[in-house]
Amino acid sequence: MAGGSGERFWPLSRQTRPKQLLKLAHPDHTLLEQTVNRLSGLIPTENILIATAPHLVGPSQAHLTGLPAANIQAEPHKRNTAGCLVWVAANLLAKDPEARAKMSMAVLAADHRISPDDGFQATVSKALDVAENQSSIVTIGIKPDRPETGYGYIEVDQSAANQGDERVVIRAVKQFREKPDAATAEQFLANGGFLWNSGTFFWTLDTFLTELENAAPELYLATLKLADLLRAGDLQGANDAFAALPSISIDYALMEKARKVAVAQAAFDWDDVGAWDALDRSLPTDETGNVGRGDVVVVDSQSCIAVNDHPGITTCLLGVEGLVVVVTEDAVLVCPKDRAQDVRAVVDALKSRGIPKV
Amino acid sequence: MAGGSGERFWPLSRQTRPKQLLKLAHPDHTLLEQTVNRLSGLIPTENILIATAPHLVGPSQAHLTGLPAANIQAEPHKRNTAGCLVWVAANLLAKDPEARAKMSMAVLAADHRISPDDGFQATVSKALDVAENQSSIVTIGIKPDRPETGYGYIEVDQSAANQGDERVVIRAVKQFREKPDAATAEQFLANGGFLWNSGTFFWTLDTFLTELENAAPELYLATLKLADLLRAGDLQGANDAFAALPSISIDYALMEKARKVAVAQAAFDWDDVGAWDALDRSLPTDETGNVGRGDVVVVDSQSCIAVNDHPGITTCLLGVEGLVVVVTEDAVLVCPKDRAQDVRAVVDALKSRGIPKV
Repeated sequence: MAGGSGERFWPLSRQTRPKQLLKLAHPDHTLLEQTVNRLSGLIPTENILIATAPHLVGPSQAHLTGLPAANIQAEPHKRNTAGCLVWVAANLLAKDPEARAKMSMAVLAADHRISPDDGFQATVSKALDVAENQSSIVTIGIKPDRPETGYGYIEVDQSAANQGDERVVIRAVKQFREKPDAATAEQFLANGGFLWNSGTFFWTLDTFLTELENAAPELYLATLKLADLLRAGDLQGANDAFAALPSISIDYALMEKARKVAVAQAAFDWDDVGAWDALDRSLPTDETGNVGRGDVVVVDSQSCIAVNDHPGITTCLLGVEGLVVVVTEDAVLVCPKDRAQDVRAVVDALKSRGIPKV
Repeated sequence: MAGGSGERFWPLSRQTRPKQLLKLAHPDHTLLEQTVNRLSGLIPTENILIATAPHLVGPSQAHLTGLPAANIQAEPHKRNTAGCLVWVAANLLAKDPEARAKMSMAVLAADHRISPDDGFQATVSKALDVAENQSSIVTIGIKPDRPETGYGYIEVDQSAANQGDERVVIRAVKQFREKPDAATAEQFLANGGFLWNSGTFFWTLDTFLTELENAAPELYLATLKLADLLRAGDLQGANDAFAALPSISIDYALMEKARKVAVAQAAFDWDDVGAWDALDRSLPTDETGNVGRGDVVVVDSQSCIAVNDHPGITTCLLGVEGLVVVVTEDAVLVCPKDRAQDVRAVVDALKSRGIPKV
């Protein structure tokens, strides 16, 4: 899934250069490239499909020259993660009459930071194994290391037994919990029976359709209808039918109502790189906690994030603390880390002033 | 006097673009232009001399097209304000054998903010009048409105009587006081008998030489010697003699020891625009105290100074307070207002890294 708009990384992110196309966790590779590279040896390249927005097909292809161009597919409209996955499933069904019986899907976000790769591959292998052999939907849960209020949580059965690769623990799901307030997040962390919901899913196509039929019958019927239209070559009909779908998340449409869900506890570090303040978890810091990228000079400053993407500019910080400073070819942003989530307010201000830098 | 280097306005100021060549108090005019324009109708253009550094003669001429090019003169070396004024006096003496008997000097800094112009002209007129008719050195003192520790003070006789233009009060000097600590500055303010020393001077050439002979005989002799060398056309000799002078301020060399000094209390607002944090006294502020110049968008921010001199960049502040943000063609500076005095630390850091943007 590579359809994110990433306004929270303005001014580096733009409508045609969203978060997944930024190098936020690696000096040379975008998050999207890292996501594809991370599957090397595990998923054949021809089986990696990128679902993105129509205007991002070209930019995504430019970053993924190792992938067949046809594997980068446009969702005709923005219909959240449920819409995205219905569209992908319908395309698989349309292409192969045997798809339901033989295909599995590993659903990964294109804009997360994950390391190390071997822990990731071990987790994905086991999740796919459980999904295929136990007809279960499997999601990846992350052991929390802080009372994060920006993530959804999964309450799990702590006594769950393990099988196979001992690095990856499989647990039964008690319930999905939406983003908590600070006090609740503290309780979750102290309790120990809660994992972060990484938004990563594994299922056979048959399990997906069976569970979707139960949880969201209208989406199930839409999937079959879209597959029929695509199979018949009626692209306009498929686009129109897709446009009529509601915009809801797969968590809300399916996961929270699915009957058979397991969690694979991640054998890797994970971050959803939600906003600028996440960069000091993704990139190296100096001895006073500053993250600098590009031509940056820091004097008497602490815990700042300075990203300079303008080749002609030197960015200098003097005597500041906890600031985010981002410099691009046509914009400069200065905000405290704890306001990084609100960068959209700046994008909105620019839009309202007709400044075309969004 | 227009020889300042103005490192405290980096990155807008550079070695060839010091503070007096920046538009820090007017949207269209540099401080130097404003200084010259402010004398319109009071001092004939041909009598306005600009003393500056050799590498600033060209840039200064470019900003002062209304002035004869020859009136912009290079001090051959940097020898502080005493050296500057000795050099100017020697040039006047060399040019005109009658200079000592008939000429007066009004010594003005080229990098101060002053308004309104009519109050300034009234003050200068009266100061010149006192200087010429009472054979006194006259300086302009500013009524303090805050316990500023960045300025020198002049303790004055509060009972001094006035004569002539009632807008401008002339007072006798008790003593010059160097930059005070915070507690002393508070006492000065509460006492009421202290004025800021604006570094502005008026004297007849005869008074200047007479007082210099008393206060700093070596500088007096140097002035006469320089005049002889210049009169003889021995520029190299004059340059060498000037190079041998000590680098001291006119306050220290002359004013603190002068026998006859009066203060004209300014009938205008004044600021020496010492560093970036002075701009919220020089430029208009919005309803939350922000100063913005150039393409600047401010969201949820207070008391910030944002100067954007890069034509292609939009500078955005979100959720910050008391910050200075400066954007130029090749540099960005972010610091708190209360560190604005320390911008030289950044310039030093750049020098030590060999970055040629100073």
